[in-house]
Amino acid sequence: MMADKQTINRLLKTARGQLDGILKMVEENRYCIDISQQLMATEAILNRANREILAAHLKHCVQCAASEEDRASKINEFVAALDRILK
Amino acid sequence: MMADKQTINRLLKTARGQLDGILKMVEENRYCIDISQQLMATEAILNRANREILAAHLKHCVQCAASEEDRASKINEFVAALDRILK
Amino acid sequence: MMADKQTINRLLKTARGQLDGILKMVEENRYCIDISQQLMATEAILNRANREILAAHLKHCVQCAASEEDRASKINEFVAALDRILK
Amino acid sequence: MMADKQTINRLLKTARGQLDGILKMVEENRYCIDISQQLMATEAILNRANREILAAHLKHCVQCAASEEDRASKINEFVAALDRILK
Repeated sequence: MMADKQTINRLLKTARGQLDGILKMVEENRYCIDISQQLMATEAILNRANREILAAHLKHCVQCAASEEDRASKINEFVAALDRILK
Repeated sequence: MMADKQTINRLLKTARGQLDGILKMVEENRYCIDISQQLMATEAILNRANREILAAHLKHCVQCAASEEDRASKINEFVAALDRILK
Repeated sequence: MMADKQTINRLLKTARGQLDGILKMVEENRYCIDISQQLMATEAILNRANREILAAHLKHCVQCAASEEDRASKINEFVAALDRILK
Repeated sequence: MMADKQTINRLLKTARGQLDGILKMVEENRYCIDISQQLMATEAILNRANREILAAHLKHCVQCAASEEDRASKINEFVAALDRILK
């Protein structure tokens, strides 16, 4: 992975902490809308981590591909990821 | 929360397990695109949990509101959640 | 439809105007990224119209359902819409 | 634009036709949920057009950039687009 490891780790650990909090909220029978809001906040953090990872991938792996063939294959791979994102 | 607790627990624990797996992938410097794909799979699970929670909320809390005022206030609350979802 | 007709009309006509602009941009072979940005702006307008329509639906059709059965059926319908939104 | 012009034109014209249909549905006071569903179908078409445009951009403009500087600048531009998509 080419993204800054510390940034990604921090985001993922924040998301995991929130997820633990949500499991507790479910256990305590907290109000639906409050749980839903926390879930969306956690998804937003994962989304941000994904954005960082894909941006770093473009800037490093695609920019610095060793050959034209390698770059073409990395771009095809990225297009497939984009298809999943924009589905 | 009105959604089935077992279903939500199972979804959230699966997401947490995947998140632990992603943290390990980051540690092991795995390939960006593979990490991104796992992140999106985890977001999809949280999204499904959110859907279940909001659906159950509509079916129980809104359907069975104690009074018209209570229902109006729950609907306003739901509309605010919808705004965050469709932003 | 229970949403304010003027608001929805204005949003949809703005989106249509932008779509005509995008068709012209395609005709003129404009830059990919500029066309993509305009497309996303148009989607955001349609999204806002959708949000207005669903909010008004909840506030009128669900709030003021004629009977419990009618309300239950409208809520089921809304849950199906939510499934498409959060898929 | 590097995407296939005919494909993009066809998608955009389909979306425009659907938008005209939705304006008519609004005029005729059709049911909220039916209008919402049509709006989401139209957004899905615009989304597909956007996907085609961005994929072609990566395959042509980024793959065949004239220089390393040109490629770096195109990648930065694409990362900014990705930020808007994943916001």
